[in-house]
Amino acid sequence: MTTLIDGKAVAKKVNQATQVEVAKLVERGIQPGIVVIIVGADPASQIYVRNKNRKAEKLGMHSIVRELPETTTQAELLSIIAEYNVDPSIHGILVQSPLPKQINEPLITLAIDPRKDVDGFHPTNIGKLLTNFPGHYPVANTPRGIMTMLAAYDIDPAGKTAVVIGRSTIVGKPMAALLTNANATVTIAHSRTKDLKAVARTADILVVATGIAHLITGADLKPGATVIDVGMDRDANGKLVGDVDFDSAQGIAGAITPVPGGVGPMTIATLMQTTVELAKWSDLGE
Amino acid sequence: MTTLIDGKAVAKKVNQATQVEVAKLVERGIQPGIVVIIVGADPASQIYVRNKNRKAEKLGMHSIVRELPETTTQAELLSIIAEYNVDPSIHGILVQSPLPKQINEPLITLAIDPRKDVDGFHPTNIGKLLTNFPGHYPVANTPRGIMTMLAAYDIDPAGKTAVVIGRSTIVGKPMAALLTNANATVTIAHSRTKDLKAVARTADILVVATGIAHLITGADLKPGATVIDVGMDRDANGKLVGDVDFDSAQGIAGAITPVPGGVGPMTIATLMQTTVELAKWSDLGE
Repeated sequence: MTTLIDGKAVAKKVNQATQVEVAKLVERGIQPGIVVIIVGADPASQIYVRNKNRKAEKLGMHSIVRELPETTTQAELLSIIAEYNVDPSIHGILVQSPLPKQINEPLITLAIDPRKDVDGFHPTNIGKLLTNFPGHYPVANTPRGIMTMLAAYDIDPAGKTAVVIGRSTIVGKPMAALLTNANATVTIAHSRTKDLKAVARTADILVVATGIAHLITGADLKPGATVIDVGMDRDANGKLVGDVDFDSAQGIAGAITPVPGGVGPMTIATLMQTTVELAKWSDLGE
Repeated sequence: MTTLIDGKAVAKKVNQATQVEVAKLVERGIQPGIVVIIVGADPASQIYVRNKNRKAEKLGMHSIVRELPETTTQAELLSIIAEYNVDPSIHGILVQSPLPKQINEPLITLAIDPRKDVDGFHPTNIGKLLTNFPGHYPVANTPRGIMTMLAAYDIDPAGKTAVVIGRSTIVGKPMAALLTNANATVTIAHSRTKDLKAVARTADILVVATGIAHLITGADLKPGATVIDVGMDRDANGKLVGDVDFDSAQGIAGAITPVPGGVGPMTIATLMQTTVELAKWSDLGE
């Protein structure tokens, strides 16, 4: 009776719509362009960046992967960002995490033109999201993709109790802002929360983004809850698992995302969607 | 057994420290300067602006009240803000709410240089607050003043359950961000929250900012809770009261702010403190 929220299927629909939008823009002489800057040779990042690149090309976008050595300095990285900030063929700039320790990551986030901030991590964009500012601006792709999935399954957060476990800039904080703006009553829980499981049990919508494999089990859920698992963890056998124990959640959760095949594909699809929007807004002078 | 949180007394200490800081800066040739721009003749705003002006002058600051007619256009207001953005004698620019309907308030917020945004409402500053960004930036004065009061009474939010009722840009949202950054587990409740009173009863720290007189009574409190009342409401007899029924909270709350004499004086004291900080940071080139 637990609905499987099929992120892969929703992502496919999002990608189809993106491909149509790209084609329309190309017809008007604008090819949406994204650059992913990667510093150093983190193997997981390299796989992830290659996937983004392949997807962007498949959808008809202009896609660049700019690989920089591990020894890149702050000044060098800033100057490369400045170059793409004024490059009219690039609408989205993404600097892949993690960055080597000589790089001041907050200053890198600030250096990206907010209009090209395809990750939605620039303070100006985060502040607009928090205050539900009018107009167009990019929103962090993982939480935005989760909102798209909820909508695809007709799960309206309005009036519901939502709990977000994790308070990162990438997921937890923008997720809480989106759910608050969608009229949910939102609690942000985290590593310093006492009795985390009791808090989890209050949730009609539970988003778990902790990086701790199987932190939440079926016993921690309110029966019928919608469970969104942002985790991409490895269990003792090296198998990819989520922050939620999927098996024990069966029959208790009302709906749940699998890992893999839930949040992951939605994040990349939403990144593509955001790139196209940035291209469109830039053409409108917004 | 309920501690009275004496905002007036804490504000007095903050103001004393501010006066010392002003004197130090003046010795170095920098007089902190604030301009309050008021459009139209809202009587409550005029009293409030006069109070700010008097306090700033009393503390030794340069203080301007710029009164504009109700018919001021968006372009006129933008051009006046642009003037103060480059005026080296002004470190803090505050545009008093409410604004007449021909003014687009979000665009006014965006037009103020974030380094002179003494209210802390610019999206860039709000985004930095939400993400606990490193470095200096102004933070909305009402919630920041509340944090100062909590600290003055040795009430540490870490590990506690906090509930903020109200999700405004001025109070609720920055309050929730500050409490999350201080390691509380925070719930933002609002007009769409089901069973608001049950949510209120979970709070170790309850901040009420709804503008609804006596919305919360003693029966809605967890025994021992710290209660911060941001309301400035009028009861049926025209008497100034808070969002919390102070009398019925006695003996149940562990600590409570009165109205008046609680949050109100802290907001003005914190505004003065922020102005001086902006002057100091501008001198440091930050």
